[in-house]
Amino acid sequence: AIRPDRLLDRLERLAAIGRTDEGACCRLALTDEDRAGRDLVVSWMRELGLEVRVDRIGNIFGLRRGSEDLPPVMSGSHIDTVRTGGRFDGNLGVLGALEVVEALNDVGARTRRPLVVAVFTNEEGARFAPDMLGSLAYVGGLPLRQALDTVGIDGRRLGDELERIGYAGDAGLGLYRPHAFVELHIEQGPVLDIEGVRIGAVESLQGISWQEVSITGQSNHAGTTPMRMRHDAGYCAAAIGTKLREIARELGGDQVCTMGMVRLHPNLINVIAARATVTVDIRNTDEARLQEAERRFADFLEALAHAEGVKIETRRLARFEPVRFDDGIARVVERHAASMGLSCRRMTSGAGHDAQMLARICPTAMIFVPSIGGISHNPAEDTRPEDLAAGAEVLLRTLVELAS
Amino acid sequence: AIRPDRLLDRLERLAAIGRTDEGACCRLALTDEDRAGRDLVVSWMRELGLEVRVDRIGNIFGLRRGSEDLPPVMSGSHIDTVRTGGRFDGNLGVLGALEVVEALNDVGARTRRPLVVAVFTNEEGARFAPDMLGSLAYVGGLPLRQALDTVGIDGRRLGDELERIGYAGDAGLGLYRPHAFVELHIEQGPVLDIEGVRIGAVESLQGISWQEVSITGQSNHAGTTPMRMRHDAGYCAAAIGTKLREIARELGGDQVCTMGMVRLHPNLINVIAARATVTVDIRNTDEARLQEAERRFADFLEALAHAEGVKIETRRLARFEPVRFDDGIARVVERHAASMGLSCRRMTSGAGHDAQMLARICPTAMIFVPSIGGISHNPAEDTRPEDLAAGAEVLLRTLVELAS
Ligand SMILES: NC(=O)NCCC(=O)O
Ligand SMILES: NC(=O)NCCC(=O)O
Repeated sequence: AIRPDRLLDRLERLAAIGRTDEGACCRLALTDEDRAGRDLVVSWMRELGLEVRVDRIGNIFGLRRGSEDLPPVMSGSHIDTVRTGGRFDGNLGVLGALEVVEALNDVGARTRRPLVVAVFTNEEGARFAPDMLGSLAYVGGLPLRQALDTVGIDGRRLGDELERIGYAGDAGLGLYRPHAFVELHIEQGPVLDIEGVRIGAVESLQGISWQEVSITGQSNHAGTTPMRMRHDAGYCAAAIGTKLREIARELGGDQVCTMGMVRLHPNLINVIAARATVTVDIRNTDEARLQEAERRFADFLEALAHAEGVKIETRRLARFEPVRFDDGIARVVERHAASMGLSCRRMTSGAGHDAQMLARICPTAMIFVPSIGGISHNPAEDTRPEDLAAGAEVLLRTLVELAS
Repeated sequence: AIRPDRLLDRLERLAAIGRTDEGACCRLALTDEDRAGRDLVVSWMRELGLEVRVDRIGNIFGLRRGSEDLPPVMSGSHIDTVRTGGRFDGNLGVLGALEVVEALNDVGARTRRPLVVAVFTNEEGARFAPDMLGSLAYVGGLPLRQALDTVGIDGRRLGDELERIGYAGDAGLGLYRPHAFVELHIEQGPVLDIEGVRIGAVESLQGISWQEVSITGQSNHAGTTPMRMRHDAGYCAAAIGTKLREIARELGGDQVCTMGMVRLHPNLINVIAARATVTVDIRNTDEARLQEAERRFADFLEALAHAEGVKIETRRLARFEPVRFDDGIARVVERHAASMGLSCRRMTSGAGHDAQMLARICPTAMIFVPSIGGISHNPAEDTRPEDLAAGAEVLLRTLVELAS
């Protein structure tokens, strides 16, 4: 059995790195804070006797040998956060897997297959797009060179930042070809909390469409320029934000759309903006509906550019189709939850996760625990300690079964 | 007669200070660039034999004595710019008045009344609100202490910046009580250019309403948070931008509305924004219609806060009623334009100007010259050299008449 006190203690110690005034975790990928978090996790891996390897994109792997030299069962997640992240997003998946290793060490148990604890680079995508960049590169979905050349929101090159923090490793991508991958994560959405269910057996993950939209208008004077003569990039940014809301309402169901980032230039009170850059995040569990949302948005941009007399360019930042996880592993998760007396439901994931990339190369599923109030990417993100522990215990039993 | 070559040369030399890569002037008020511009203008004032005084809010005055010790005729403008300003906005009014002084020096002419060339602090309002801050304080419309305590978009205090650049003068506010004030300025709007008219005799100036709107929502995950559970400050910013366009369309006429500045927090692609700050610039030539636009906007904010479940706060940054200038001076301007064979029309100003503040204490009017394409607050802002010269010549004749 896992030891909740150890798990909670590690979660707290990792959360202390990059803590902001408002109590958030700020460990954007490949910053000094991310480095400090990585160093701490690697030191724990070594304490637990894991063989640590770092690959060329900075993914970290801790290997616990099995009784046979077979493809390993892999578990893990990420420890990078958004700028206003909570303590558990990603971290639970990594430290939960570490706790599984320590619980096995406690009783001297040896699994048949090796176990690998994985920490993937830049899962959040908040600094470098796309999200899940490290796991995507790992499974061959993004060439190494292109991944290293990614430029972040601060203009820094990913490869340079990786060198700078000392995590440009020498292991090749796809170092271990897993027999199975299981990721423990907080739900981040409201479903389990609202329904009072303790464990989610995640069987699918919705499609994600990210783009950056750049608008080039004409700066002019806010007082002297008649409305009909404007080429207002700031207005276009606003129109995009309200249109996204409209698309979500029209398509209904679980369609979500978000404009999370806006930058205007020159961004002054009495100057019609010359340029705007915004990000657009569109998601749907259904690929056809996701494409319909993208189509409506593209049509809107074309009409907007024409009506306002501006140039609008889009840059694709991420595009992932909905993923179906392995039904067999989801059933293993359900069975162990039931054996522990924990309520459990099949569900889909609203967030992107490294598991969705690993699913391309091996049977994969996820275990969710409730997020109080469905709040995430927010300093107030929280999960009850007993739910964190329950999730880790289900993970232990699932990994042991898959590794035997 | 004025000498166009000297005027154009001074305009170029001043424009070189704070020039950006894209060819704009960037001399935000009380920055190092503003200081360099001030130093240059003061050196020119001294060369021309003017007695230079600086007041407590940093307004600069160059006095040319008359044959009698009467209240002076004042002329001038500002030399601060927005971040993407043109070469002539404000600068023409200051350097045009300097050229008038030099033309009088050339022929050893002495006016009956003294002439004062004025350079007012922070006219643009792009760094510190309100706009026309220096002239507003000069005429007693803003207490000195409050003016000095103004905090800029970069968090700096105006009084500290004034000390830092060495322009916290010792002259009291309202140093000279002018007999009349005349300001030469580029139109910044399209009217003269479209109509092919060379000179504008400005008889009025529209009302200006500036506010900052702060929205506090709840950051959350862009993928996991259902639309109905969002408290999205970024969406609210967008809704404000599109509502302003709607209000302008509904009210019609010369109503203009602009959202020039937007800041989101945390401003990341997959995070619903927790907070947003935007600026709102609403103008109308008619006070009743301006109030109607403000009312509709306030009602909208209330409904939006309720619908989205966010807190919305507003802060007043500037509020000036429409101004009527002195009809007598406008007639003097018309007469001199006519005598020079220049087409001329009465008109209103879309932009705010120091003249609108001086109009509170003395007969005031303005002289406009065309802006090519009506473009301003833009590096491409331009006025034909012959129009710059024509405006300065009309200014010369108007000042000489008023000072005699
Ligand atoms: N788990 C998580 O928040 N991942 C970030 C990628 C996304 O935006 O869904
Ligand atoms: N002349 C000028 O651009 N003044 C700035 C104040 C305003 O926003 O109208």
